[in-house]
Amino acid sequence: MTAHQPLPSWRPGPRRDAILNFLHQVTNPESACYVAPEDRIATFDHDGTLWVEKPHVTEITFIKDLMQHDEIRPQPLCGTVQGFIRHSLAVFMEKVLKDTRWLLREWIDGVSTDDYKNWVQCWLGKAKHPRFQRPYPRLVYQPMLEVLALFRQHGFRNYLVSGGSCYFIRAFSEEAYGIGPEQALGSQLMTRLRDKNGQLEVELKPIPWFLDNGKGKVLCIESHIDRHPIAAFGNSRGDIAMLRWAGQSKTSLCMLIHHTDAEREYAYCPGKKTLKAVSDYGWQLVDMKNDWLQIFPAEASTENNKNTELN
Amino acid sequence: MTAHQPLPSWRPGPRRDAILNFLHQVTNPESACYVAPEDRIATFDHDGTLWVEKPHVTEITFIKDLMQHDEIRPQPLCGTVQGFIRHSLAVFMEKVLKDTRWLLREWIDGVSTDDYKNWVQCWLGKAKHPRFQRPYPRLVYQPMLEVLALFRQHGFRNYLVSGGSCYFIRAFSEEAYGIGPEQALGSQLMTRLRDKNGQLEVELKPIPWFLDNGKGKVLCIESHIDRHPIAAFGNSRGDIAMLRWAGQSKTSLCMLIHHTDAEREYAYCPGKKTLKAVSDYGWQLVDMKNDWLQIFPAEASTENNKNTELN
Repeated sequence: MTAHQPLPSWRPGPRRDAILNFLHQVTNPESACYVAPEDRIATFDHDGTLWVEKPHVTEITFIKDLMQHDEIRPQPLCGTVQGFIRHSLAVFMEKVLKDTRWLLREWIDGVSTDDYKNWVQCWLGKAKHPRFQRPYPRLVYQPMLEVLALFRQHGFRNYLVSGGSCYFIRAFSEEAYGIGPEQALGSQLMTRLRDKNGQLEVELKPIPWFLDNGKGKVLCIESHIDRHPIAAFGNSRGDIAMLRWAGQSKTSLCMLIHHTDAEREYAYCPGKKTLKAVSDYGWQLVDMKNDWLQIFPAEASTENNKNTELN
Repeated sequence: MTAHQPLPSWRPGPRRDAILNFLHQVTNPESACYVAPEDRIATFDHDGTLWVEKPHVTEITFIKDLMQHDEIRPQPLCGTVQGFIRHSLAVFMEKVLKDTRWLLREWIDGVSTDDYKNWVQCWLGKAKHPRFQRPYPRLVYQPMLEVLALFRQHGFRNYLVSGGSCYFIRAFSEEAYGIGPEQALGSQLMTRLRDKNGQLEVELKPIPWFLDNGKGKVLCIESHIDRHPIAAFGNSRGDIAMLRWAGQSKTSLCMLIHHTDAEREYAYCPGKKTLKAVSDYGWQLVDMKNDWLQIFPAEASTENNKNTELN
């Protein structure tokens, strides 16, 4: 694993070549496609693009666990609400996205953004994925860690653009991906500023403020970065607009991760509309089973990952 | 103007010393107050802190001019609305903040964020300040340009946190302050994504989405940066929360610019509540008349400014 072998977890072939060619073009001052360092922006969807999103999106599992294990929550819910939520949990989890608003109202009001991140960190230190029996931060995709590192080496700023909440991903994005909170964008609730004994604190309000999905991903990129990404990675219909947005740049790299590997990860289809977009716009379709030699970081390889980051 | 004479436009004395001591403390690895580079965040209010805000906040002057000079606007308003707006202009400008919403509805709907920025750039190239007869970008405060440059040299990331719209400041923040759009925060309208002949475009909606003032400045910093600023500069009541927020850091520098110089700039009071906050929280009060040896960049000194940036 040296600087002469970039992307070691990618099988040599068209997808790996597409990444390497793109990076060569936009960073070569002699090239007509050269892009100045300040405009080298790459955006990455999170769930299913950088880490496992099955059997459930991890933040949903976190919320579910949190509600079942009150010791994580500093101030327990009042008995009635708690009982009612527990009773309703099975029902609600079936249609969780739709009902998240309702749950939030009962549960999240007045929690500080710092507390929420502490809960996430605490939970990530304990929770294990039901199938792989690994902590979730060890279920990031090794080939994508290599992409993030290689982009950084080429002067890119990598942004997470997640449909999940920014409070969740910011709790670990720096450690997991080398992406600081100012580059980790996600869905947001409304917030308010509270004066607590002379100290200001930002608290969550139970009102959805911004859904960072679909067209929302482009609006979020415009609002936070206001530079056109020239590379974008996604895996679902919610990423189509973001990939189109990046694809409008003179030179761009747009990649959609296709989960084709039931054995090593999961196999599921992103939907006809998404696959049609891939072919209509000429994006790269990553066939996980064939294009990725390795899915997750090696079990005893914390050190190896660090090396990958540095190469 | 060499590296051995930092902040040449600041009179030697307590305010200049406060800045230099702060920078020394947080960047000295031996100091107990050392702050890692990634956490060196400084936030700056814009109007009245980095450039002139009298007799009117510049974005208001821009909007007023824009409505009077239709040639800047690519698609003229329909006759009736245009006539009605012109007729009403004098009345509306009296109570402009309150009525901005109404004006926006008639005027801004469907304008792309890129178009808005183009208008601003076009206007800034022509418009002159009524008193100083200079283009507005030449009415930035020289001492603050030196602060921005010195902070950058010390590994800081400088953020604009403006009560004005982010679309306005992003049109020139890079050129004027060396601050890219991703670090230029401001008030926002709602936006929508439009598909225009297969090309996506972000358009403004006439609905105020976020007012980046007062407590809103802290919520904006939390939403966009999610790191605690350790330095903050402001000049009015709308900056109190931001300065308090920065002041909660272990080591911090909070400065309020007091406009005391009717001769070289303007003299006006930020209000009792603001001055009380300065004394309650022990912030630095910059007395423009006495602390600043020079207010604006020298007339023929485009080159000098560039040098200041580089020193």
